[in-house]
Amino acid sequence: MTETASPRRRARGGGAARRAERSAVVIETARFIERNIPNFEVLNDDALDIILNNAEKVLEEIGVNFPDNPSALEKWAAAGANIDGDRVRIPRGLARKLISTAPAKFTQHARNPEKSVEIGGNTMVLAPVYGPPFIRDQDGGRRYATIDDFQKLVKLTYMSKWLHHSGGTVCEPTDIAVNKRHLDMLYAHMKYSDKPFMGSVTAPERAQDSVNMCNILFGEEFVQNNTVMTSLINVNSPMVFDDIMMGAMEVYAENNQACILSPFIVGGAMAPVSVAGTLTQVMAEALAGVAYNQLCRAGAPVIMGAFVTSIDMNSGAPTFGTPEASKILYGAGQLARKLGLPFRSGGGLCGSKLPDAQAAYETANTLNAALLGGVNFCLHAAGWLEGGLVASPEKLVMDADQLGVLHSIAKGIDMSEEAQAMGAIEEVGPGGHYLGCAHTQANFKNAFWRSNVLDYRPYETWAEDGEKDTFTLANARVKQLLADYQQPPLDPAIDAALVDYIETRKASEKDAFG
Amino acid sequence: MTETASPRRRARGGGAARRAERSAVVIETARFIERNIPNFEVLNDDALDIILNNAEKVLEEIGVNFPDNPSALEKWAAAGANIDGDRVRIPRGLARKLISTAPAKFTQHARNPEKSVEIGGNTMVLAPVYGPPFIRDQDGGRRYATIDDFQKLVKLTYMSKWLHHSGGTVCEPTDIAVNKRHLDMLYAHMKYSDKPFMGSVTAPERAQDSVNMCNILFGEEFVQNNTVMTSLINVNSPMVFDDIMMGAMEVYAENNQACILSPFIVGGAMAPVSVAGTLTQVMAEALAGVAYNQLCRAGAPVIMGAFVTSIDMNSGAPTFGTPEASKILYGAGQLARKLGLPFRSGGGLCGSKLPDAQAAYETANTLNAALLGGVNFCLHAAGWLEGGLVASPEKLVMDADQLGVLHSIAKGIDMSEEAQAMGAIEEVGPGGHYLGCAHTQANFKNAFWRSNVLDYRPYETWAEDGEKDTFTLANARVKQLLADYQQPPLDPAIDAALVDYIETRKASEKDAFG
Repeated sequence: MTETASPRRRARGGGAARRAERSAVVIETARFIERNIPNFEVLNDDALDIILNNAEKVLEEIGVNFPDNPSALEKWAAAGANIDGDRVRIPRGLARKLISTAPAKFTQHARNPEKSVEIGGNTMVLAPVYGPPFIRDQDGGRRYATIDDFQKLVKLTYMSKWLHHSGGTVCEPTDIAVNKRHLDMLYAHMKYSDKPFMGSVTAPERAQDSVNMCNILFGEEFVQNNTVMTSLINVNSPMVFDDIMMGAMEVYAENNQACILSPFIVGGAMAPVSVAGTLTQVMAEALAGVAYNQLCRAGAPVIMGAFVTSIDMNSGAPTFGTPEASKILYGAGQLARKLGLPFRSGGGLCGSKLPDAQAAYETANTLNAALLGGVNFCLHAAGWLEGGLVASPEKLVMDADQLGVLHSIAKGIDMSEEAQAMGAIEEVGPGGHYLGCAHTQANFKNAFWRSNVLDYRPYETWAEDGEKDTFTLANARVKQLLADYQQPPLDPAIDAALVDYIETRKASEKDAFG
Repeated sequence: MTETASPRRRARGGGAARRAERSAVVIETARFIERNIPNFEVLNDDALDIILNNAEKVLEEIGVNFPDNPSALEKWAAAGANIDGDRVRIPRGLARKLISTAPAKFTQHARNPEKSVEIGGNTMVLAPVYGPPFIRDQDGGRRYATIDDFQKLVKLTYMSKWLHHSGGTVCEPTDIAVNKRHLDMLYAHMKYSDKPFMGSVTAPERAQDSVNMCNILFGEEFVQNNTVMTSLINVNSPMVFDDIMMGAMEVYAENNQACILSPFIVGGAMAPVSVAGTLTQVMAEALAGVAYNQLCRAGAPVIMGAFVTSIDMNSGAPTFGTPEASKILYGAGQLARKLGLPFRSGGGLCGSKLPDAQAAYETANTLNAALLGGVNFCLHAAGWLEGGLVASPEKLVMDADQLGVLHSIAKGIDMSEEAQAMGAIEEVGPGGHYLGCAHTQANFKNAFWRSNVLDYRPYETWAEDGEKDTFTLANARVKQLLADYQQPPLDPAIDAALVDYIETRKASEKDAFG
């Protein structure tokens, strides 16, 4: 949208007219979800105790590996763990004692304070897809992603009412050297959006770059006293904490920035083929990882993650939206709540190569489980295709639309007298019609969630318009949103300082690829 | 599948070889779902009391209409209701007293006893789409449905492992006269399937035909003592019980056959625009309808239904898979359980014209809510398109595949020692791989739900094979299933008697259309 109305013209019609003028594009972001509904719980107390007990037994008797990381081993030894080579065996009770300093809830600040989010308790924060090296859209098909694709995904996320968070590696900008692209990715989140974002985790020095750039954007003192990044630290399951990921986590924890400590598991390959066994391993890994995070800095914000899917035993491919994945999500959510930790899981996960029915079944299964299972930070909530190999702008707007459904369910049922509508039932009576009654007229505008993508027109109208499927409808919406995009204002001095930092850092390194 | 192996050849390889030979088609039907997970509840006790109290107030002060049905008014008057023209006002407490004779759970018998189903308590029975006048498939597009389409849908439902019930009007066979098609529909369910089915409700005499044909199929004494049909009685919302539907229900109740008493509501048009108001109306209608059912025959099996969707305020079209529909489903399920009635709701509902991503999002939202909301009888669980105007064979096999997901979630989490898999975690250890370990080898075959439709192959393999989307994959599966279909054996004497009954009845009536 270009701003064509002059201030004088805009003043004439009053507030309502001004709002109408601006209605071509409304950049509105919903507040993060606060659930007014219960969590869905599949495990009873006995089952939770068995899994926690088994996880502590795994930590004590089998242990976990911290390879190539002598300082981590030193911290563990000082805390009372038994060290044997890279292996860390954690006596029963120690990990649970260490994680007790982790906050149950924290605020991640955005540069626009209205878009800061709370993570933990009854909240749910929605962030887009993370990590795909490929992009697919209807116009260009499937290809390696570039920084141009990255910026488009950041803009689409910024424009979405239902995505609260700009995410991190929304796709891999493969046209930029591996050791430099994190700078351009961070800059895109900082410049093209004002929502909260994630930092780089692919090397400790890139985590430090992320902190340094946030110091420029937010001010150094603010960063030291507040959380301005939430970054994704995967466990190399089963039970290996590699030195690169741990090195990035150490930087973030020392700077009081949040990490998601996430077992990344394809069940049957990287964990037992059973749900209970996988939950035990998830719990052992999360306990060890969160405990180490707190060893780096007691009180640092940290999220317990569980990215768990299952394997197709025919092809060896990971599968998504399966019942096993939902059950693990529900169970892991219960375990996180029992430990008092914010919980990350779910997303719009799917294995499909196209944004077709398979993608949507799998995505909806995962998103519904994430809402009801008590997920606090939902990465990959929109735009994910093909097991995470591909990001899709059309899928992003399709999924983002469905995230509105989650917001509404989370509100629960309004039981006010107005909502009870006894007057309407009396007014209309048997055989009547509610469309024209006073209660409907007063309430219809906000009564129902409305889709911005799906087609509700009668068959004939839709057929005359070319029988468009959801992929095609979403393609049109992507183009409209990108045409309407306007950059949120950024202080030019800050912008210049960021550009200067990036140029200096890039000049100091040779390009590295692969 | 044609049986090509000679008995001698089959005997050679032992059990495993025989199983492999037969594996081209396995006609296996899962037992109806018995939930080992809790129900999801969004209303607290106070909210449930408010809605029940409001519903009784509606019945007492506003009342419901039973037009053109003097015998119904007589029954109501005798029971203590206040009659004013067609209007029946039901004093507080009367409806709840009358419904107390309805069974909380009943068995519907199939002609194959292994496929009989229990409806109520913690069970969930899945039945296909009901009612569409149109059919859409990938080969022929959208067109009026015929008896040939009807038979194909019955066969596909029979072949599905996850559909427990053959349903009723899986599509309208529009090539047969309105007053005769119910005979051909019933015959198709009886001959081409051995799963339980539904009777005709479009006229009281067609309900009687349904009973008479069941007398031939099951024997008259068996029918009088057992439930062999579950039939769909819609309320003409708001609060009108039309004489045709009630006439059919009277026939069924008097013959001890089950009815689903179902408010059919597009919220905002046929009920208040609010969730709490709609639940109140659903409850008032269900109380009045189930109470009338019990007035016709105390103890007759009856299901409380809630088919509720919302309206798109732009187009006036009904919408599906919306958050409002899910909330109403969850709330109505709680109300049914509070009253001790089996509950019908949900399904694979969608508004999309194609079996695309929109259809799948909407369908998955509805199916997940149906499972977690405690639905006992789930009509429209597979094959529904375009707001119920269209039945689709491809959508039927796509949805039926997803119903397998529900079966697995309903089982809950196995907490046996074998499932805890502590030996596997110890055997594999940090950095190891589970694919080859003893626990995986012993358990992988039954560990994960497997799709028969979705594509998990790597991108390259899938691309070489023509980049097929879900619709196209499902089209191939439909053709394979129909090619493999084999009719379940039916006593030729019974078959002949059914054909004779149908011919006699058809000869006695002139064709009526529309």
